[in-house]
Amino acid sequence: MTTSGGEFWYSKETMRTDSLPTLDTTKELIDAYLDAYSNRQMQDAERIGPSYVYLRKTINALIQVGGKRLRPHMVLSAFQAYAPEEALESVVPAAVSQELIHLAMLIHDDIIDRDLIRYGIPNVAGQYEEHYTKYIPKVSERQHMALGAALLAGDALITDAHQIIRTTDRPHDLVLRSQDILSRSIFDVIGGELLDMEVGVLPKGSIDPIAVAEHKTSSYSFVGPLTTGAVLAGAPETDIALLAQFGTHLGIGYQLKDDILGVFGDEDKTGKSTTTDITEGKRTFMVQQFEQLATEVQRSEFFAIFHREDITDADIARVRALLRESGAAKATEERMDYHRDQCDQLVRQLAIPDTYREAFFSLMAVCLVRES
Amino acid sequence: MTTSGGEFWYSKETMRTDSLPTLDTTKELIDAYLDAYSNRQMQDAERIGPSYVYLRKTINALIQVGGKRLRPHMVLSAFQAYAPEEALESVVPAAVSQELIHLAMLIHDDIIDRDLIRYGIPNVAGQYEEHYTKYIPKVSERQHMALGAALLAGDALITDAHQIIRTTDRPHDLVLRSQDILSRSIFDVIGGELLDMEVGVLPKGSIDPIAVAEHKTSSYSFVGPLTTGAVLAGAPETDIALLAQFGTHLGIGYQLKDDILGVFGDEDKTGKSTTTDITEGKRTFMVQQFEQLATEVQRSEFFAIFHREDITDADIARVRALLRESGAAKATEERMDYHRDQCDQLVRQLAIPDTYREAFFSLMAVCLVRES
Repeated sequence: MTTSGGEFWYSKETMRTDSLPTLDTTKELIDAYLDAYSNRQMQDAERIGPSYVYLRKTINALIQVGGKRLRPHMVLSAFQAYAPEEALESVVPAAVSQELIHLAMLIHDDIIDRDLIRYGIPNVAGQYEEHYTKYIPKVSERQHMALGAALLAGDALITDAHQIIRTTDRPHDLVLRSQDILSRSIFDVIGGELLDMEVGVLPKGSIDPIAVAEHKTSSYSFVGPLTTGAVLAGAPETDIALLAQFGTHLGIGYQLKDDILGVFGDEDKTGKSTTTDITEGKRTFMVQQFEQLATEVQRSEFFAIFHREDITDADIARVRALLRESGAAKATEERMDYHRDQCDQLVRQLAIPDTYREAFFSLMAVCLVRES
Repeated sequence: MTTSGGEFWYSKETMRTDSLPTLDTTKELIDAYLDAYSNRQMQDAERIGPSYVYLRKTINALIQVGGKRLRPHMVLSAFQAYAPEEALESVVPAAVSQELIHLAMLIHDDIIDRDLIRYGIPNVAGQYEEHYTKYIPKVSERQHMALGAALLAGDALITDAHQIIRTTDRPHDLVLRSQDILSRSIFDVIGGELLDMEVGVLPKGSIDPIAVAEHKTSSYSFVGPLTTGAVLAGAPETDIALLAQFGTHLGIGYQLKDDILGVFGDEDKTGKSTTTDITEGKRTFMVQQFEQLATEVQRSEFFAIFHREDITDADIARVRALLRESGAAKATEERMDYHRDQCDQLVRQLAIPDTYREAFFSLMAVCLVRES
């Protein structure tokens, strides 16, 4: 099995899969490719020196812990729905590139948010802060240098994604189109990141939380992977357009679910704090709804607590109650239902056998009916 | 004249050029493409909102001021040397992509160096610090957000470079190879940036200044553009390899010249301070040579001044004298001469008519015999 750029790294004969790809089978395929890729990049970094090898190691640590490989899974699912006779492995590079862009964005997002932990381990900046401890005594300088290393790590992953997608083993015109989608996804997510960064500082109302969800979440996490899989399969244009709409609604729904879990979720299940969104004053759709629906009294009580570090459990409970009493929580659920219904209708319109339609319904379940 | 992705944006018939491309003709071609590209990206950003349009404006301001377009010039010169019958315009996208990667790296490098000025105007972070003044009162927060915007701007340019190079109007296999070169250039320059960032903090001697020059300067600024032009022209492999070696030596020579001008240059001509390298304690090849060649007394005198902010004109004069007296300045000149001689020999080996060979000698003059 070779793993270099343009060659096939699998045998077309032996690995054909006709059943629906599950998250587990996706993860196996993707992780095998990612392992080979990580080793290759690490070896290449040796040309430049141990410093660079260390940078790649910090990246690899994050890749290995990684997530569910949901984005690659969407590429494979959409591909199989429209090209069930083709080997899934042929589009693994395109699927992997979605994961690498995701990781690049997480690493750069963490710089903006000053976060040092990702997937429960120190992220690139976090690993470098530790690494630099023995060389840079001054804390602020060490932090700055660690952020510099994380900046470079993200740059490396953006470039790797562009390089890897080119090796997708599908007809040239389809691969070119998948590259267009990748570039557009990145163009959009950068815009979405910017909106998300500015939503808390620009005057209220200047940035719409649904627009943030659409550009930051839907674009590269849903629309990109789904249309990439379909395009590489040679799906009909109508269906590619339907999948783009499906991805947009699914991404917005996913983000709304995130906002709800961020305040009302079970910390044991989500693994995330249910106070951070409140203490950091995150301007979600739910908060926007609250501002529109709440009474004067509710508003003044809410904003005396919201976006403050020093709040008690009772404060948190009160914020939750206010979000419910005002109707903001319900409005958010309803908005989520709207996007779920749209997703549902769109999936029914796809010109594919019901067996493959199931993959998209499963995806909706994973994204919208989750507790974590 | 259309400017969208895969279409031709020029008429092949009308724009063929047979004379050597000068820096001026390059700049005209490149700037016309960059203008169209900037407008296109700005319009596309409107989909996402005024925040994103503003980000693109800050990028465009830097593009317009820009530099000499030396990297695109190298692509065009190398292309013409091996495909004099072909229209230079066909490789303008590949040439532009080199400029965009350069700009991306400058923007990210400025984040690492905490610089706010580039090409004599506020860089992306600099423009954002001003822009955010009315929204973010707290200075440290404003600075952080401005760096976040600059981070995203660099990401956008990396992706644009990958997207634009694909539209190069040359045979598919050659374009693919130029994309490999681009990815490798970026891989290398990220390593070079990391070495450059760490050279001042890791233990002395762990990073070789020549390796920094090779990976940070030669790779994407010389080897990348030169081999890109030659590959797209279908040059013989021997010559592509010679140009890669030429680019490596030229880049190292360029960096050594920079180090010399950084201490002994004429500020009126270079437009750069001749004290910063000393006050910031930049570990150049010349400083490394000084450490090896100087006497104990010279060393203790030098390092009492080097890397300190509060030094006088007399201190600077003394540092210069010590670099001369120790032989470090001479050793640097000699090392530069070595790389220039290598360049000279390599150019003579290229299998091209002398008319085109001139372009590479001119390039050596521009890079190595400059006073600014």
